[in-house]
Amino acid sequence: MTLDAVLERIDATLPEATARLIDLLRIPSISTDPAHAADCARAADWLAHELSGLGFQASVRPTPGHPMVVGHATGEGRHLLFYGHYDVQPVDPVALWHRDPFDPAIEETPAGLLIRGRGASDDKGQLMTFVEACRAWKAVHGALPGHLTVFLEGEEESGSPSLVPFLRDNAAELRADLALICDTGLFEDRVPAITTMLRGLAGEEVVIRAADKDLHSGHYGGLAANPIRVLAKILASLHDDQGRVTLAGFYDDVAELPDSLRAQWQGLAFDHAKFLGDVGLSLPSGETGRTPIEMVWSRPTCEFNGISGGYAGAGFKTVLPAEARAKVSFRLVSGQDPEKVRAAFRAHVRARLPADCRAEFAEHGSSPASVMAITDPAFEAARAALAEEWGLPAAYVGAGGSIPVAGYFKSVLGMDAMLVGFARDDDQIHSPNEKYDIASFHKGIRSWARILARLC
Amino acid sequence: MTLDAVLERIDATLPEATARLIDLLRIPSISTDPAHAADCARAADWLAHELSGLGFQASVRPTPGHPMVVGHATGEGRHLLFYGHYDVQPVDPVALWHRDPFDPAIEETPAGLLIRGRGASDDKGQLMTFVEACRAWKAVHGALPGHLTVFLEGEEESGSPSLVPFLRDNAAELRADLALICDTGLFEDRVPAITTMLRGLAGEEVVIRAADKDLHSGHYGGLAANPIRVLAKILASLHDDQGRVTLAGFYDDVAELPDSLRAQWQGLAFDHAKFLGDVGLSLPSGETGRTPIEMVWSRPTCEFNGISGGYAGAGFKTVLPAEARAKVSFRLVSGQDPEKVRAAFRAHVRARLPADCRAEFAEHGSSPASVMAITDPAFEAARAALAEEWGLPAAYVGAGGSIPVAGYFKSVLGMDAMLVGFARDDDQIHSPNEKYDIASFHKGIRSWARILARLC
Repeated sequence: MTLDAVLERIDATLPEATARLIDLLRIPSISTDPAHAADCARAADWLAHELSGLGFQASVRPTPGHPMVVGHATGEGRHLLFYGHYDVQPVDPVALWHRDPFDPAIEETPAGLLIRGRGASDDKGQLMTFVEACRAWKAVHGALPGHLTVFLEGEEESGSPSLVPFLRDNAAELRADLALICDTGLFEDRVPAITTMLRGLAGEEVVIRAADKDLHSGHYGGLAANPIRVLAKILASLHDDQGRVTLAGFYDDVAELPDSLRAQWQGLAFDHAKFLGDVGLSLPSGETGRTPIEMVWSRPTCEFNGISGGYAGAGFKTVLPAEARAKVSFRLVSGQDPEKVRAAFRAHVRARLPADCRAEFAEHGSSPASVMAITDPAFEAARAALAEEWGLPAAYVGAGGSIPVAGYFKSVLGMDAMLVGFARDDDQIHSPNEKYDIASFHKGIRSWARILARLC
Repeated sequence: MTLDAVLERIDATLPEATARLIDLLRIPSISTDPAHAADCARAADWLAHELSGLGFQASVRPTPGHPMVVGHATGEGRHLLFYGHYDVQPVDPVALWHRDPFDPAIEETPAGLLIRGRGASDDKGQLMTFVEACRAWKAVHGALPGHLTVFLEGEEESGSPSLVPFLRDNAAELRADLALICDTGLFEDRVPAITTMLRGLAGEEVVIRAADKDLHSGHYGGLAANPIRVLAKILASLHDDQGRVTLAGFYDDVAELPDSLRAQWQGLAFDHAKFLGDVGLSLPSGETGRTPIEMVWSRPTCEFNGISGGYAGAGFKTVLPAEARAKVSFRLVSGQDPEKVRAAFRAHVRARLPADCRAEFAEHGSSPASVMAITDPAFEAARAALAEEWGLPAAYVGAGGSIPVAGYFKSVLGMDAMLVGFARDDDQIHSPNEKYDIASFHKGIRSWARILARLC
């Protein structure tokens, strides 16, 4: 009855909610780039101001990096903590965007209306589904639905260096009965999903150095060590012919999938041909003998995320570079220790360095994989709420991406997390032309209203 | 007698000659970067103006790329054509320069005075040694020394795309009895040298593409093809464990060094420990079983000059890039056909492309290796002139770098070339902080005066 009024309010005020999201998307809060620190602060201020307007006791909380936003609403019943992140990925290669990534707009497409811009899906659009659900609730009821904490981070896209210290320093304030995290997607773009299995991550940067300056490849070529060649050889040694990672001990702590989960995943009938076809690919290229859904949900990987060295501009330069570098990340599954993987990687590189070459390493974040305990009845309640909104049974799924905060909520605060999100596979997050469907945004807001009605 | 007067004039006017070189060095004539096209034109104009002032009939000659400068002086005797190039290498990484690369200055160092700036050694300083020798000759004699043509190119550092067409179109005008090329160095920084063996070059750029956009490594990692991984594996396959290039047929046309030349080179007592030590290295890293001097003078190579793909900025981005690219060059020796090597490279890459990956190639210049015929008595005359100036017997040496014009003079014009230059190994050509010793400049000018006195 009153939920219906909230849902009607959401429907009636969708244009205003969309306009607010566009305001937030205009702020280029790229957390990995120090040049955008002020923009991150601006996004945090904007959100704290919104939360205050809804009746949250909201504040921007400084960290050694980008600030956190925390808002509290006192109330009866179960204490729920909602998590999202206001920072976004870099936008390069910017030439591939069809519009300014930070001048978002609504586009009409054959697939429906969507909002185009960096962060539209990851994660500003998603976090705003919760904020807007709270706003509609407040408008109808005159109060927020219950005992809520909103906790928004600004370093998710850059390894969350301040997260664990902040959780530790504010554990009593942030520990709730359950965390709600909105940073995941629908299954196959239409089935509502609760993500219960997340891969972890260990990020590394390696620099190979040889000569103390760039050399002329005519004068030194054939005689002097070439860091690009050394790096290519090392990277090529990290997978075997079956696509398995060759680091010592990499699979020691990796368990096979339980038969029950394997059967449930087979029931999901993941259309990998479409998933790959949407990005111009046709064949899974991972480990031999694994299904595509295993490759992304339950198997660890080693990926190369960036490489550079020598002359990369227009034309040609016959240089032997002094250094070459690569950014390498490992997606980890339950049981793998990120620091053990990192140490194995560094040992693997060092063991393959020829004479006169040196390796330097930089750490770019780490998080273990997470597996959610779904025995809390809140999970079934949320499944029912999602099924009502979407007209389909909600699925428990895995996710290839890392959402380290879920693991930290558990390890630091002892708090379980429920991951519900509305992104689609073609949202192009981390890519040019990121978008969020208005349908995701609209039904996402409605979904949170339904979930809050059941959980609060 | 009159030569002495010319040499005295050179000594007395060295400051003015140095100031003119600095003027030329101020023009950022980076030929590979289209943004500097106007600067290349400006350098050509500057040189044509200088030559005209010395009595050459000089003109700037347009090409589809950067212009050529041609100056003629009629006179008796043997027709000599002098070649140099006025374009320079890019300056990145610019942060490693200790001063603006195009704001050159004279520096006083423990090793003597030097001129610091991009192009100081390669090749503006070197080409000006000849121009200044002509100037002093003219001042003393009232006329240039003989039948001379000066031919200056503006695309040497970017693959010389206009050179062969220009030579073909102007063959009658440019064909002389002998070409003099000043773009090489002293041997071991002190022994005057005539370079008689030059490696050739085939430059290639390869782009590996997979998905039609950058992907999130969480969503697609382990499932989708990663172009950096494909590229690294292909690059790693281009050398075997002995450091030999693995392209099919690569060594088919490579002859072993004649015993006589091997003996002469052993006599040169090349100090490779110093050569490598000067750039922070200690060990030759080329083909097993070859001497260091063979590695750079008489053995072909495959080098990686640049690599890029994915996110290379500060911080980290968990992206699977849509593409990765490498610039690859092959130094070639006498007998190797650049186009055959290029075709073998492309076939090698294509044979190793996994499903869903495509390769695209771009050509970045090619030239065969050159071996000079030193039967022309001009060679012994020049050796004698150099020995007089430097107080040491001049050596016939090889060079690892490619000076394609020498090959084109022979193949297009039927003209032999004599390569005499005064660069030092530590000139840092193609690197940050390029320099040319004032001693190289001064004794270089004097060397040309002595050579002209004997040849004209």
